[in-house]
Amino acid sequence: MKALVKKQIGVIGAGSCGNEIRALAEMVGREVAKRGAFLLCGGLGGVMEAAAYGAKQEGGITLGILPGTLKEEANPWIDLAVLSGMGHARNALIAQSSDALIAVNGEYGTLSEIALGLKMGKPVIVLESKWEIEGAHSSKSPQEAVELAFRLIEKNGKN
Amino acid sequence: MKALVKKQIGVIGAGSCGNEIRALAEMVGREVAKRGAFLLCGGLGGVMEAAAYGAKQEGGITLGILPGTLKEEANPWIDLAVLSGMGHARNALIAQSSDALIAVNGEYGTLSEIALGLKMGKPVIVLESKWEIEGAHSSKSPQEAVELAFRLIEKNGKN
Amino acid sequence: MKALVKKQIGVIGAGSCGNEIRALAEMVGREVAKRGAFLLCGGLGGVMEAAAYGAKQEGGITLGILPGTLKEEANPWIDLAVLSGMGHARNALIAQSSDALIAVNGEYGTLSEIALGLKMGKPVIVLESKWEIEGAHSSKSPQEAVELAFRLIEKNGKN
Amino acid sequence: MKALVKKQIGVIGAGSCGNEIRALAEMVGREVAKRGAFLLCGGLGGVMEAAAYGAKQEGGITLGILPGTLKEEANPWIDLAVLSGMGHARNALIAQSSDALIAVNGEYGTLSEIALGLKMGKPVIVLESKWEIEGAHSSKSPQEAVELAFRLIEKNGKN
Repeated sequence: MKALVKKQIGVIGAGSCGNEIRALAEMVGREVAKRGAFLLCGGLGGVMEAAAYGAKQEGGITLGILPGTLKEEANPWIDLAVLSGMGHARNALIAQSSDALIAVNGEYGTLSEIALGLKMGKPVIVLESKWEIEGAHSSKSPQEAVELAFRLIEKNGKN
Repeated sequence: MKALVKKQIGVIGAGSCGNEIRALAEMVGREVAKRGAFLLCGGLGGVMEAAAYGAKQEGGITLGILPGTLKEEANPWIDLAVLSGMGHARNALIAQSSDALIAVNGEYGTLSEIALGLKMGKPVIVLESKWEIEGAHSSKSPQEAVELAFRLIEKNGKN
Repeated sequence: MKALVKKQIGVIGAGSCGNEIRALAEMVGREVAKRGAFLLCGGLGGVMEAAAYGAKQEGGITLGILPGTLKEEANPWIDLAVLSGMGHARNALIAQSSDALIAVNGEYGTLSEIALGLKMGKPVIVLESKWEIEGAHSSKSPQEAVELAFRLIEKNGKN
Repeated sequence: MKALVKKQIGVIGAGSCGNEIRALAEMVGREVAKRGAFLLCGGLGGVMEAAAYGAKQEGGITLGILPGTLKEEANPWIDLAVLSGMGHARNALIAQSSDALIAVNGEYGTLSEIALGLKMGKPVIVLESKWEIEGAHSSKSPQEAVELAFRLIEKNGKN
């Protein structure tokens, strides 16, 4: 009867990226949707777009929390758009709203989300990360990353 | 091919309310979902809960933008929850993310959202409002309110 | 020994205004500074600039909480600038950070701040207001507005 | 004639810390104030309190951007308090409002501010950091950190 039963998995990463990273992000999005979770992201290009695209290919639902105020800035695979108008401060909302965060590669913005997620006690999984941050869990494939995310959420007794 | 085609209608109002207002809010939620739009709200009780309940009865999808950081604070009819952790500042996100706002009765928080919506140039429709705010459109029924919302969005050339 | 002893008075109003409103806002700023309080505002033009100018003429200290990310957007009478980058959501920060709010005339943005202030339980005083909002205190002059602000803060046992 | 001439230096670090880190933060605060800049911080304990204390010993002015809504949560050396009520999202405001950031040791919250500062193109100086982040400048003493901050601000042509 409770509607809010689905998990929300945040996929974070840079707004532009090469094909290899894009393929990993898409696979993460697919795995998230296959497991029946909602995909959260920052709603823009690069990793965010690839993950949303992947989720939509598997019939998932995607939520983008954008920095700006225009719906048109969302990538084409975003179903619901939160137009925060808050710039970088929206990173905290992505971290806070996710049951777990999966970082695919990423730049400074991603690092800020990793740090915020850890600060908030969220499971944080990294894939192809350039940072070594204590407390973040490394993974070797999109499948492993998503599996780890769900396992850690369960362990935390979240939802 | 573009996923972000559905309109997002924000329904705003007090966190607790009587049965009459609750019934109006539920009807607004039903009408929003029947027309295939997503229902946005603040995710808590009262008008927000009634509107989300109504939308779910018609198979709609609901997004709650909450002031706090806990999923458990969302009412049971919220599908996706943005845990803003921003308190009252989240009101601006509800206004900004909605293609149109429908206020059902409401207190000071609702008034702030009406004002922010008007400031942002959004269509704002009020139902059983205690405030008379220039620029906000009055309506006499949930059906009229929702119809007006869609008509004004189209007129604004939004979406 | 406690540094945070000075009151913080928020002066709110439109970003552009005529000479009459400007003169009132300047007088409000002067009175705030004369009484040894810090002047808070949105940091932009119009009422915000006039109030900050007034405060500086009396040797006061001014804090602007701006919507954007650029220091250059602050008016020339702002001592300290918070560059929120949050757009309209910064209105909530002005309301929350003020011990009392004084609205000089104003448009929708001001109305949102009045509503947020009342929601937060802050004393709200209006001067030359176009809105009649229950709970907001009317005043007939800048002197009366500022006197009322301090009296209501004391009554509330704030600080 | 322009009031906003003083630089704003953000000092970031954990809300609780040992005596050695506290002494470093105090020295950073002293150096910031001696050079006539405003000290920005998160307004709470630990590094934030020590830096604000140091600045006040040298006659500086301190601004705290707090996560909560209560003035009483500010440490006793904060002159002006922004009560953001935004939780961790306020970290972005500290980074955005600072002409340069100096991190003294620090935990995940500090890391998020370092990352946000770098994302925003701000000079970021670290002292006794546990993280090695490309783009952040290392320093060996409070004096060196503050000197570096001012030098990098000038180089960036900021202000």
